[in-house]
Amino acid sequence: VKIAILGDGGWGTAIAILLRSKGYEVFLWGAFPDYVEFLNKKRKNLKFLPSVKIPEEITISSDLKKVVKDTTLIVLAIPSHVMREVVRQLKGCDISQSIILSVAKGIENKTLMRMSEVIAEEINPPRLAVLSGPSHAEEVARQVPTAVVVSSPDREVAIQTQNIFMAERFRVYTNTDIIGVELGGALKNVVAIAAGVSDGLGFGANTKAALLSRGIVEMIRLGVSLGARPGTFNGLSGIGDLIATCISPYSRNRQVGELIARGKKLNQILEEMEMVAEGIKTTRSIRDLALSLNVEMPISKGVYSILYEDKPPLSVVNDLMIRKAKPESGENLK
Amino acid sequence: VKIAILGDGGWGTAIAILLRSKGYEVFLWGAFPDYVEFLNKKRKNLKFLPSVKIPEEITISSDLKKVVKDTTLIVLAIPSHVMREVVRQLKGCDISQSIILSVAKGIENKTLMRMSEVIAEEINPPRLAVLSGPSHAEEVARQVPTAVVVSSPDREVAIQTQNIFMAERFRVYTNTDIIGVELGGALKNVVAIAAGVSDGLGFGANTKAALLSRGIVEMIRLGVSLGARPGTFNGLSGIGDLIATCISPYSRNRQVGELIARGKKLNQILEEMEMVAEGIKTTRSIRDLALSLNVEMPISKGVYSILYEDKPPLSVVNDLMIRKAKPESGENLK
Repeated sequence: VKIAILGDGGWGTAIAILLRSKGYEVFLWGAFPDYVEFLNKKRKNLKFLPSVKIPEEITISSDLKKVVKDTTLIVLAIPSHVMREVVRQLKGCDISQSIILSVAKGIENKTLMRMSEVIAEEINPPRLAVLSGPSHAEEVARQVPTAVVVSSPDREVAIQTQNIFMAERFRVYTNTDIIGVELGGALKNVVAIAAGVSDGLGFGANTKAALLSRGIVEMIRLGVSLGARPGTFNGLSGIGDLIATCISPYSRNRQVGELIARGKKLNQILEEMEMVAEGIKTTRSIRDLALSLNVEMPISKGVYSILYEDKPPLSVVNDLMIRKAKPESGENLK
Repeated sequence: VKIAILGDGGWGTAIAILLRSKGYEVFLWGAFPDYVEFLNKKRKNLKFLPSVKIPEEITISSDLKKVVKDTTLIVLAIPSHVMREVVRQLKGCDISQSIILSVAKGIENKTLMRMSEVIAEEINPPRLAVLSGPSHAEEVARQVPTAVVVSSPDREVAIQTQNIFMAERFRVYTNTDIIGVELGGALKNVVAIAAGVSDGLGFGANTKAALLSRGIVEMIRLGVSLGARPGTFNGLSGIGDLIATCISPYSRNRQVGELIARGKKLNQILEEMEMVAEGIKTTRSIRDLALSLNVEMPISKGVYSILYEDKPPLSVVNDLMIRKAKPESGENLK
């Protein structure tokens, strides 16, 4: 079984190591030949996953055609804003036998499409799936018990992918609600920025728990209006991923919120950050989606006004936490 | 407006300070005259809430009759296993004009009753409510933004209580599903012990997020079979309180799990702990409830076997995280 992982960031590298440990023939592709050469020499992904050695048996290459040839599975571990660009490069390759699996968490700006929609539009693969859930690369790489969800409209494809990934410390569930699974992974990054703001302001577990409880409510609200099942958001790819992202020191989105609350400007953060914080771009997409669908999303709106309208974080948190008083009804909470 | 808070633990003290800051005449009652005298002298609750000064305007007393006389509101901030005993002492008092508010989170052993049921059985007050949600006393006392839920079968009583408590940094929602609100607060302590076990074993955010996602599923399962609305568990008193308890360094239930995973015995922990970890007793009650109602609760069952059957924590976590593989369907997650 040959597997290609496209994207030599932290998550791509962790997945390559995980799948290699199951004995597959694993190829890791990076877009930048210089960094690929560096990885081949050092056998450590010093930029994105410095703590773990990359086994010699993993072939690291920037030759896309060679890497994807005759694969059972192609994993797209690529930031969402360059997903379309990379997928386009697959057009000339023979990938008709491969399952295409997106592990990116984001929504494309402007088109507001989910990653599986972007992939389908570009190459329309016969077998397409996504993998999501609480799975920080650093923890997966050091074999911390992790549970994720694989989703595909085609249950068979989901089960095949589940079987490929399942490992002693990496549990894979299946779910056929691909809309809900993808939206959970994308929307949660925006709430994570809000949670980081709360941390940066010195607030505590009470505040964070309140933000997450109300955050999942607005995620469900948008998700349902886009055709997702509400129950999906109560699972691993929804509240699960939201919790992990909001409590992990590794979460880049949470960090962005924390830095902004401590007075850094967004431009400065973007300049200094080596890794992509998907939530920054997703905040824009969600705001557009919420506006066009007329869905109330006070937390996401608050994050938007902090990031893009220079509104002081404390006043946004006050708006969210303090001014709004309502009954908490089952109806409101779905 | 005169208010009595029965129970001079951390939560009772924090509530007394919060309500005093709104200008009410506040009485704090403690069962032990020696400790009440100590509190009156030191004006600090050194055992249970050492960081905050108790304002002179709060009357601290162990004279129950005097304290509850002519009150608008009586707050029962008492550990659940002594709730019945204290409520019985109210029988001889004139409290017909008072709202009785339970802020305890637990289920009575043997009878398996919720706190509002225990109170109703003993004194059947005309106006009864509960307050729950993510609200660590230490954070409320230092004015960290906090949001909670007040629930009563009588909406008017809930709204009156909401108005009494509402403050700039203490937001109160109402919810009429008292069964769901009380169960959320009690059941979450058992999952928190599991989360502590995960911490004690050195696992990470991925593991904790998976435990919480699956934990709320089994909380909902039991709750629904007891007449609660599933949506209540997705709110502040359910997933909200669960998150706060599982991430806070202050959570005693989480701490118990962590200590056990590091090799301490339950007896030893109980001897050394000044404060009550409700979850230890609740684990027993929930196990009995789950058995009698035939509800599947693998996490609570795992915690029971760690606490009361001396099963090694690692093997329980492995059972939970590693052996069970299923589709994650909207139906399962309800």
